[in-house]
Amino acid sequence: MNSGVRGVDLNCDLGEGFGPYRIADDHALLGMITSANVACGFHAGDPVIMDATVRRALEQGADVGAHIGFADMQGFGRRRLSLSRKELETLTLYQLGALHAIAVGAGHRMTHVSFHGALGNMVAEDDELAMVLLGASRSFDPSLIVSSIPNGAAARAAERLNLPLATKFLADRAYDDQGLLVGRGTPGAVIKDPAAILERVKQALNDNSITTITGKRLPMRVDQILLHSDTPGSIELGKTILDAISQSGRPLMPISKIIHGK
Amino acid sequence: MNSGVRGVDLNCDLGEGFGPYRIADDHALLGMITSANVACGFHAGDPVIMDATVRRALEQGADVGAHIGFADMQGFGRRRLSLSRKELETLTLYQLGALHAIAVGAGHRMTHVSFHGALGNMVAEDDELAMVLLGASRSFDPSLIVSSIPNGAAARAAERLNLPLATKFLADRAYDDQGLLVGRGTPGAVIKDPAAILERVKQALNDNSITTITGKRLPMRVDQILLHSDTPGSIELGKTILDAISQSGRPLMPISKIIHGK
Amino acid sequence: MNSGVRGVDLNCDLGEGFGPYRIADDHALLGMITSANVACGFHAGDPVIMDATVRRALEQGADVGAHIGFADMQGFGRRRLSLSRKELETLTLYQLGALHAIAVGAGHRMTHVSFHGALGNMVAEDDELAMVLLGASRSFDPSLIVSSIPNGAAARAAERLNLPLATKFLADRAYDDQGLLVGRGTPGAVIKDPAAILERVKQALNDNSITTITGKRLPMRVDQILLHSDTPGSIELGKTILDAISQSGRPLMPISKIIHGK
Amino acid sequence: MNSGVRGVDLNCDLGEGFGPYRIADDHALLGMITSANVACGFHAGDPVIMDATVRRALEQGADVGAHIGFADMQGFGRRRLSLSRKELETLTLYQLGALHAIAVGAGHRMTHVSFHGALGNMVAEDDELAMVLLGASRSFDPSLIVSSIPNGAAARAAERLNLPLATKFLADRAYDDQGLLVGRGTPGAVIKDPAAILERVKQALNDNSITTITGKRLPMRVDQILLHSDTPGSIELGKTILDAISQSGRPLMPISKIIHGK
Repeated sequence: MNSGVRGVDLNCDLGEGFGPYRIADDHALLGMITSANVACGFHAGDPVIMDATVRRALEQGADVGAHIGFADMQGFGRRRLSLSRKELETLTLYQLGALHAIAVGAGHRMTHVSFHGALGNMVAEDDELAMVLLGASRSFDPSLIVSSIPNGAAARAAERLNLPLATKFLADRAYDDQGLLVGRGTPGAVIKDPAAILERVKQALNDNSITTITGKRLPMRVDQILLHSDTPGSIELGKTILDAISQSGRPLMPISKIIHGK
Repeated sequence: MNSGVRGVDLNCDLGEGFGPYRIADDHALLGMITSANVACGFHAGDPVIMDATVRRALEQGADVGAHIGFADMQGFGRRRLSLSRKELETLTLYQLGALHAIAVGAGHRMTHVSFHGALGNMVAEDDELAMVLLGASRSFDPSLIVSSIPNGAAARAAERLNLPLATKFLADRAYDDQGLLVGRGTPGAVIKDPAAILERVKQALNDNSITTITGKRLPMRVDQILLHSDTPGSIELGKTILDAISQSGRPLMPISKIIHGK
Repeated sequence: MNSGVRGVDLNCDLGEGFGPYRIADDHALLGMITSANVACGFHAGDPVIMDATVRRALEQGADVGAHIGFADMQGFGRRRLSLSRKELETLTLYQLGALHAIAVGAGHRMTHVSFHGALGNMVAEDDELAMVLLGASRSFDPSLIVSSIPNGAAARAAERLNLPLATKFLADRAYDDQGLLVGRGTPGAVIKDPAAILERVKQALNDNSITTITGKRLPMRVDQILLHSDTPGSIELGKTILDAISQSGRPLMPISKIIHGK
Repeated sequence: MNSGVRGVDLNCDLGEGFGPYRIADDHALLGMITSANVACGFHAGDPVIMDATVRRALEQGADVGAHIGFADMQGFGRRRLSLSRKELETLTLYQLGALHAIAVGAGHRMTHVSFHGALGNMVAEDDELAMVLLGASRSFDPSLIVSSIPNGAAARAAERLNLPLATKFLADRAYDDQGLLVGRGTPGAVIKDPAAILERVKQALNDNSITTITGKRLPMRVDQILLHSDTPGSIELGKTILDAISQSGRPLMPISKIIHGK
């Protein structure tokens, strides 16, 4: 970190293919981002894709983290499943371990954990669940950075468990007045206009705030900007966001550098 | 190890259920064995079952290792799949990591690696493949014990890679004159008579040898006796084998104690 | 049908294995029941098991029907999934067709449809969903018998769609005062005492009524008694139920014979 | 059929997505082809995608057939699995029934059967297997058209079983001198140059012959031209092939019209 100006990380969900299937142009995206949340074979991903993603990230100096989701590839992890906390704890550990080993095998290291889709929403809402799942992450590796929206149960659990927290901003998603994501089913929940997305990024970077769906200004400290890989034009959008980061004066760097200084 | 008498480990493939399904009485078996090869969600197993198996093993003082198999639950990992070495390397790492994390989460540790079914046969036959897969194991954790039949490619690779090797004896399977397992498809490949199995165990323990399918005596150093959990009467058979171990004068202990002394 | 005495069918959920896994002694059960609801590869089952189940049913003169469930083998179809009605309609058709073809290939025929687990509960509660799923069944084959509890949305939809309805009695499950099943999570929902189960069967057969969980007597016409294959002692219980049927004077026969007379 | 000129069908493998994944622009392709081989949820596809594919085909007047493959989505059905003939027979029936029911539910009908990937190769090579699988198809519906390369075991079995046969030409795949497909692993097996593909189509249509990988001319009667949906530029290529068909003077029509006249 240089002279007190906090870095910012361009983060992306990647490795979301399976067998012959691909969602995004991961190769190109890995050329511009500084950290990737890698699908671990449950809502998407398989060992071969995980390995390729991790190796490309290593080449490009990007961090990799586990993107933990439900075992529901058909629903892409976006459907809530009725699992017990115990079941969710074990699948969190399983996926953490799987990516960790793939990273070690590739000569890389896993730096963070993030929850995907429906599980991500549940972890943001349910304090007890967040304590269980982040407790599992801590038992596995207490230095793993929790990548999460700053408002919500996951961030609270990270604080209570004394885990390093990276606050993530989803520039293309609407927020409610509590600073939680508006559900995908709600009109206006997903912002598609690149100009609007860029405006939101600038506000987050320069003003440490977001504007909620009701028009309210909400203070928000942002360590990471999430670029959605499956948005059409994500590569172009990524470039524009990189420009905005550059103009903000905040240095671009992987999340581990921001949080741990290395 | 006491006064030069090498210990012996009673080993079992466990956690081979899925969701509501179970293969064996894992609870009872874990009360008598000293190490378990735990299915990792590919040929069998799921996070919940892995966790339950590991916790019960910890309670009973038994070691746990990863039982690596093909992602083929319908075929129970017994069908050869045409995967590249690279694909097999990544699925090995994935499964190692998954069990490692479940073990860490439960307060236990993973001590060994073993290959299941068709993949086990391939690793025993193909030196190049064995080098790749055990190389992956070494890159993940060089102290992981390779649990394998002593003759064959996996054992050779373990030696070349300087990995700790536990030599395993499958008392209910016929061996050919090269000391390799006779394929399950061949008549006489699976020995079902408990008395015959017991006789083979005694010979291995007391004479450090086995009798091959052609009647030849083959010297064989044995660190582990594998008890097949899905054999009818496996609990009774296990008790008989424990008696034979006791009579042999070799102390029963987990494989990590035999190999690493702890 | 002889002289106005309505027949009764002993019905069972079967084929609930997968690959090497089995839940029940299907072979023995098929020797005593008169109709089977066959899992279609979603919550359980696979083509090989479906085929074996259908062939054994044909040998024994038992009807086979499709047991439609969620694609959730790990949860055994007992977890509610958030699927749209359209999605549920397509998976109903898919499973109906799959069993139909397996039956045709074996020289048998599919006579009925039944919904399993969480989907069964949803179809009993949601009139709109029941109309969609039974509408799909009708579009596939209007002579397919709907096998359902008599109270609830599926039975109502069958009537509105003019579909043949077989009223099923789950002797080991508690009913509420509306004649709907008490959820498995509720204490007392599953009745395990064989004597109590037998008593309930007798009341249903001889008095055309059930006693609800609150102790109320509710009239209920019963065409089928469901024997749960995964209940411990199900074979013994089945024999006792057969005795009760025999004593009731109602002839035992496959459901197609009761409903269609052939 | 008009005045003795045999029609020709433009055929395509479609519905090869899964959950959120898509392989090809099925919507556009269905606007130009006359028959589709629909993946049935084993090597690709799911009920929702099958339904959408069938409905769009119906709108466009295109035939639909079952594209039977191994249950191996990760390998996209291109890896040979060691299944018994019996197992392959049951999965063929299962998939036939599934698509049949989806088609019936959509108000369409299933007209043909085709084998995908590794299973397709096995059915072209193994006469005994071809007899079993096409025997299964016949037992399900003897009017189902077998869509196959004309040389090879599937075509022979169709003749022996007296099943209607549509001879298919894979314009972008090399053939050996026996008229069998050169394996994908062999250099030159897949032809990517659109001009070369077009030349091959013209030769097939106008001269009833193909040129093999060794340069030999082999007579070949062609009822269907297969357009690979996952070839880059498949839409453009399809248009060019349609021009070539138009120039050949052979009328374009669905395969059922060519074979059954309706």
